[in-house]
Amino acid sequence: MDNKAPGKDVTDQDLKDKFPLAAKKSPDHRSVFDIAGVTFGAETIPVFAGPNTVESRDQIIDIARNVKKSGAHFLRGGAFKPLTFPYRSEKYYELREEGLGYLADAKAETGLPIITEIMEESKVDAVAEVADIMQIGTRNMQNFPLLTRVAKTGKPVMIKRHFGCSLRDWLGAAEYVLVEGNEKVILCERGVSVPHTHRSSSRFLLDLQVIPAAQEVTHLPVVSDPSHATFWAPWVEPMTLASIAAGADGIMLEVHPDPRNAAVDPLQPIDYQEFDALMTKMKAVASAVERTL
Amino acid sequence: MDNKAPGKDVTDQDLKDKFPLAAKKSPDHRSVFDIAGVTFGAETIPVFAGPNTVESRDQIIDIARNVKKSGAHFLRGGAFKPLTFPYRSEKYYELREEGLGYLADAKAETGLPIITEIMEESKVDAVAEVADIMQIGTRNMQNFPLLTRVAKTGKPVMIKRHFGCSLRDWLGAAEYVLVEGNEKVILCERGVSVPHTHRSSSRFLLDLQVIPAAQEVTHLPVVSDPSHATFWAPWVEPMTLASIAAGADGIMLEVHPDPRNAAVDPLQPIDYQEFDALMTKMKAVASAVERTL
Amino acid sequence: MDNKAPGKDVTDQDLKDKFPLAAKKSPDHRSVFDIAGVTFGAETIPVFAGPNTVESRDQIIDIARNVKKSGAHFLRGGAFKPLTFPYRSEKYYELREEGLGYLADAKAETGLPIITEIMEESKVDAVAEVADIMQIGTRNMQNFPLLTRVAKTGKPVMIKRHFGCSLRDWLGAAEYVLVEGNEKVILCERGVSVPHTHRSSSRFLLDLQVIPAAQEVTHLPVVSDPSHATFWAPWVEPMTLASIAAGADGIMLEVHPDPRNAAVDPLQPIDYQEFDALMTKMKAVASAVERTL
Amino acid sequence: MDNKAPGKDVTDQDLKDKFPLAAKKSPDHRSVFDIAGVTFGAETIPVFAGPNTVESRDQIIDIARNVKKSGAHFLRGGAFKPLTFPYRSEKYYELREEGLGYLADAKAETGLPIITEIMEESKVDAVAEVADIMQIGTRNMQNFPLLTRVAKTGKPVMIKRHFGCSLRDWLGAAEYVLVEGNEKVILCERGVSVPHTHRSSSRFLLDLQVIPAAQEVTHLPVVSDPSHATFWAPWVEPMTLASIAAGADGIMLEVHPDPRNAAVDPLQPIDYQEFDALMTKMKAVASAVERTL
Repeated sequence: MDNKAPGKDVTDQDLKDKFPLAAKKSPDHRSVFDIAGVTFGAETIPVFAGPNTVESRDQIIDIARNVKKSGAHFLRGGAFKPLTFPYRSEKYYELREEGLGYLADAKAETGLPIITEIMEESKVDAVAEVADIMQIGTRNMQNFPLLTRVAKTGKPVMIKRHFGCSLRDWLGAAEYVLVEGNEKVILCERGVSVPHTHRSSSRFLLDLQVIPAAQEVTHLPVVSDPSHATFWAPWVEPMTLASIAAGADGIMLEVHPDPRNAAVDPLQPIDYQEFDALMTKMKAVASAVERTL
Repeated sequence: MDNKAPGKDVTDQDLKDKFPLAAKKSPDHRSVFDIAGVTFGAETIPVFAGPNTVESRDQIIDIARNVKKSGAHFLRGGAFKPLTFPYRSEKYYELREEGLGYLADAKAETGLPIITEIMEESKVDAVAEVADIMQIGTRNMQNFPLLTRVAKTGKPVMIKRHFGCSLRDWLGAAEYVLVEGNEKVILCERGVSVPHTHRSSSRFLLDLQVIPAAQEVTHLPVVSDPSHATFWAPWVEPMTLASIAAGADGIMLEVHPDPRNAAVDPLQPIDYQEFDALMTKMKAVASAVERTL
Repeated sequence: MDNKAPGKDVTDQDLKDKFPLAAKKSPDHRSVFDIAGVTFGAETIPVFAGPNTVESRDQIIDIARNVKKSGAHFLRGGAFKPLTFPYRSEKYYELREEGLGYLADAKAETGLPIITEIMEESKVDAVAEVADIMQIGTRNMQNFPLLTRVAKTGKPVMIKRHFGCSLRDWLGAAEYVLVEGNEKVILCERGVSVPHTHRSSSRFLLDLQVIPAAQEVTHLPVVSDPSHATFWAPWVEPMTLASIAAGADGIMLEVHPDPRNAAVDPLQPIDYQEFDALMTKMKAVASAVERTL
Repeated sequence: MDNKAPGKDVTDQDLKDKFPLAAKKSPDHRSVFDIAGVTFGAETIPVFAGPNTVESRDQIIDIARNVKKSGAHFLRGGAFKPLTFPYRSEKYYELREEGLGYLADAKAETGLPIITEIMEESKVDAVAEVADIMQIGTRNMQNFPLLTRVAKTGKPVMIKRHFGCSLRDWLGAAEYVLVEGNEKVILCERGVSVPHTHRSSSRFLLDLQVIPAAQEVTHLPVVSDPSHATFWAPWVEPMTLASIAAGADGIMLEVHPDPRNAAVDPLQPIDYQEFDALMTKMKAVASAVERTL
């Protein structure tokens, strides 16, 4: 593991002292594990699809059926949502425990396993009952007590990188889960904040360079989430295909039956037809880089 | 051209007032033009390959022969180089006019057209005599007198985005060339500077999101240069394939017969065999997104 | 409140809808409140001084005595510390509840009120018993359940700005506390992450421009913490004096009897003599801008 | 010169190899030199005041008289202006050689020496005839042929830091001037670009931390320009006073008789009365840090 490039964020010393469990033991070392019958870290690229927010029982079941038909492996959907401001509106809300129940119903109806976000310690058990993967959101990436508490459930954990944090910080967060003996840890890139003057045209910039950078030093699978980063549906397709070409070990996408009327962030989801068409293109690019979907 | 996403850097007003020539006239508007028999802006993706710096006559001819054999369309190589500090060493130098001559020799031997950097007004004519494409480097993106002077040669111009500049600034630079009646303008993304805390592991981060962002508002072709951005040869392959999947209209790569002994930036070039193998993979990804090489 | 400057992060609509409680009602609106006999938001500039980490009972009492003698208004010191990696060493540790006890002892001995960090919901009551101000650290700025839980104790709260968050995000966090009816909210700037290429020479850059920017839109006091941002003791003096000249409503400083042997971040604390000398200079600059210490 | 802090941009090796002339020879080493009777690098802090752009002969003479009356040491004003887009309007223009003539007239009338920007090699001699200090703008900081050409005039040079460049890059630019034997080099901080998510509320963030960082490694004087960075007149006062408290060796300010009708950037200049009042406050803060104006 030659790690001598100037400007590298992670040093060889870090790999030994700071995240010995997240660090690769050899150049070919890659964690391969099963979650709900889906293999992570191998040739296949799992796809997580669904809405930003669970809006109703009917909505989430309808979405689950449609994304499953197009080939998604997991249903994503938020029951608990971190919102920058404390006020909710008729259109902008969380269903909380009620939403968890609807996710469970969608799973019962379709068989699709669930990935959903956990934001607070007091809800860990409730979320763990429904989720096949517990998602740590960007804002909680360094909420260490939450990481430890979630790790202890034994459930697989996906850690979204904070938009202002380095690869080194991200691996530190993963180590908090691994040190509890929980080995099913997935990393997820979702965009970094960029200086105003070189903002390409969005709030965040999807950092695809972090995919080979992370894979160089860690054995953990790295998922890419282009929907949040781009914040703009027309860019989701090119950035999804680029993620696969860059070596992503999974893809997370926002899919909504009627994007313009989504409860949260209506500019970023794609609809059922767009998702179905994108899955076909994703398979073509995956095949070109000797992966499968 | 719906341009309403929050956080967008380029407004509809900008498209009308600031860069009317660079702006698309309709969603499908794309500039297609020929340079030295190679078509830009269409299905085919031109590849520029060669060393950072022209080191000797033999070196540049050998490189030209090898990258041509693997399918490159243009030979790249610097005769004039902007260096952050005023001191040169035995290993770190520019051949200047002598280097231009060697580029001309390499073209004569192989037929490969030339792209090379122009840094100062007094050398514009000398460079224009040899170059098929005049390259404006990142540090001169906003050197407006130079842009105007180069535009007036009538030679095609490739403008590298400054690592601290926005899409809006970049299109402003392109407009300086277009307004002189020179329509063969190519944009080139080469990485942006990123906050220390979320540096993935390099000096720069290749901004692939700017490719769909630029193509949404401008008709000009957008090339990607993964070598400089990643500064690390092992990441060049994934970021090159990701560039193509993201929709890049051209690829610029550093190729050197003996990378570790390159005069400048020895960690980033790939060697002949790596380039040849990468070309095969690039063709596979290009084909998956309905492009060709 | 004219808020029309281009590039402004906070809009007039935000002031009405997103943080109506944090927003100023008129240009001269400033919150003035008392904490443990010290007035915030008025002419006087409170100073919080002490170690990064409570290391022992003797250490914290000795520090309390010394910073009090030089004129500090509050004792700062961490009993709970967020650490990027899960491993502790002999030198790098947290005393947790034991440390809280020592802070209480230091207060009993010297009368200095206490500011200390709270990181997890399960410790809120324990910290609230000892702290006069509950500090929310940079990494928990958007840990909304924690903000709400802390707000409900009724104790004054100081919110450190996340190094990757905007003024708008920061005011959103303040609103989470204010909406619970807790009006004693203090904002604290502690440095933002900056692009690698324009890093002045540290991990973070103290954003003094945010002081007038925040004071333009919010009535809450704004404290500056130069120690963490600069990460380098020799720069603490100029950045502290600059903070006061920029209008800071409070100053937080790391003071340690033997900085090079501090348990955490040994390059940033100043020693007793340096603190005493700095207090004299702070008074001179405060007086020049019609404030007092 | 202990330079061991983690994250430092400039290494001891750089000081020896990359900018031996810009580097301090000892901790107390500071360049002190005279320009037009004003001492730089010593106790006194020179003030450069005037409009962004020379708009007319009457305007510039009126401004020169007024800023001189309030105590400014130099008249600033742009005859040549770098504009992001190639189009000019009735309100937004450059007077070029005509403007240089008006600057000369203002100097003849008031005796105030002149600082003005030079953007292109072909105008170097014309500008050198009028200017007492040749200003290199942010966008030309790494235009190395221009730096060399300007250095050779022997005129004092002020180099504005590029908004996306590091201290290391900045010192590299200074070295290009010093290596030509021109020792009167002044550095000027004017704001760096910051990530969208932590933008405090402006396009740029004035990096005051770079003042002690630069003074730690170089003997050259460091000037601060709060007008451009803040882009908002109400923040100019606090950031000017903070610059002095942070140790700035000079202050550059935009002053205009009727700011709202300024030809360029009407939100950032202060008017005559504001400048006069600010000079009084600047003197008070300067005195508090043992400097004079």
